[in-house]
Amino acid sequence: MSFPLVVEPFQEDFQGHLSWANMGNMTLRIASLHAEAHGFGVTYMKEYQRGWVLSRLAIEMNAMPASLQGFSIATWVSRIFRQFTDRNFEYRDADGRIIGHGISTWALIDYQSRQPINLEHLPNGGFSAAVFDEVPPIATYSRVRVTSPQLTLSHRCAVSDLDINGHVNSIRYLDMAMDMLPIEWHREHRLHRVELAYGLEGRCGDELEIAMQPLDALRFAFEIRRPADKAVLVKALLSFKDGI
Amino acid sequence: MSFPLVVEPFQEDFQGHLSWANMGNMTLRIASLHAEAHGFGVTYMKEYQRGWVLSRLAIEMNAMPASLQGFSIATWVSRIFRQFTDRNFEYRDADGRIIGHGISTWALIDYQSRQPINLEHLPNGGFSAAVFDEVPPIATYSRVRVTSPQLTLSHRCAVSDLDINGHVNSIRYLDMAMDMLPIEWHREHRLHRVELAYGLEGRCGDELEIAMQPLDALRFAFEIRRPADKAVLVKALLSFKDGI
Repeated sequence: MSFPLVVEPFQEDFQGHLSWANMGNMTLRIASLHAEAHGFGVTYMKEYQRGWVLSRLAIEMNAMPASLQGFSIATWVSRIFRQFTDRNFEYRDADGRIIGHGISTWALIDYQSRQPINLEHLPNGGFSAAVFDEVPPIATYSRVRVTSPQLTLSHRCAVSDLDINGHVNSIRYLDMAMDMLPIEWHREHRLHRVELAYGLEGRCGDELEIAMQPLDALRFAFEIRRPADKAVLVKALLSFKDGI
Repeated sequence: MSFPLVVEPFQEDFQGHLSWANMGNMTLRIASLHAEAHGFGVTYMKEYQRGWVLSRLAIEMNAMPASLQGFSIATWVSRIFRQFTDRNFEYRDADGRIIGHGISTWALIDYQSRQPINLEHLPNGGFSAAVFDEVPPIATYSRVRVTSPQLTLSHRCAVSDLDINGHVNSIRYLDMAMDMLPIEWHREHRLHRVELAYGLEGRCGDELEIAMQPLDALRFAFEIRRPADKAVLVKALLSFKDGI
């Protein structure tokens, strides 16, 4: 299932490409629309009082479409294992050339018990008919650890950070990580791969700490923490390439 | 010229309506596409090294479309006066009912001289043929003054705040203003009218101060300042209604 898109004015970053934040939210939007089309989206969740929770996300882009250019995002579910399911993404430019891949892992949470549902035992076979057993040709998730941060900044979560569930939008954490690097860095390096691992959800008013540790010349690890309860909300890894 | 749109997943605020930030950026996008279609958009600006600069914006919404609902934004230019032009907006829901209006004022800046162009003396009559002399039935811009702020918070401009020109995105200032009010306020009050008056442009790394002053029970004035050079970047006025 592939969704055609266009980079609209005011969706670009300061260098004229689709911003990673918009790319990330479009990716989640496509996941949501695909789930809905297969009967386990917003409508299902409302009826059964359940909700999809993003556990991990990795996106690798070899090129980012520029202003007014078309592109597409395809998505499919490749695996269902106990409480988790793997959803993949393939990004193509207007000429149909593959420009990127994504992998993600989700859990389905019951709002009453706050527990994840076993996805292998859903009624009527659940969504096993939608599974397509192929995975993108990119590395799987890394293990992220921040042991001695080089820089730590703070962020007070506000209304503009929230998604429809009242939690901090999953992609806002990517902005928080990208914003740790100065504009001079972004001018000379292209963000190539993004990894996000989600723990507890952030809420409006939360005071967060974003800690950054360089891993090598082009890779940076991040931990986004909430000092009030010592929670780690998100771990992230950004990998850059030289040049734009 | 009317553009059909849909509230996509991940464009909503925490209450399930299209967020003001997304509504604002869609409004600017439509302005850009309309200008392009009339020969004075991105293509023209690249060739002549000029750029549209937003001077004032006011949007009044009686309802905000909810998740997955369709809506439309129509736009037209109603006036050209010396260095300025007025562009208007009309918002309709999926049934064609008017749900809001917008007014905006723009200047065309020459990148080399940094001076505004006299829009009445453009070659070939400029875009005077596109002018449609009708204005929306909402109040014009107010005069905003913050004399004794009740609350002042700071914001460090970062890469994620920037637009394609490398300036802080015009609508980010609306987020900064909305974020000054606690979530409890937003839960019980619907943002009805937004006014923004733009001065100097914000850049990455700028340390800003956002000062808020209540005007009455439902209206708040804001000044977004850059203490480093005592510049006022944006003045804003938010008017709320009781209930959601």
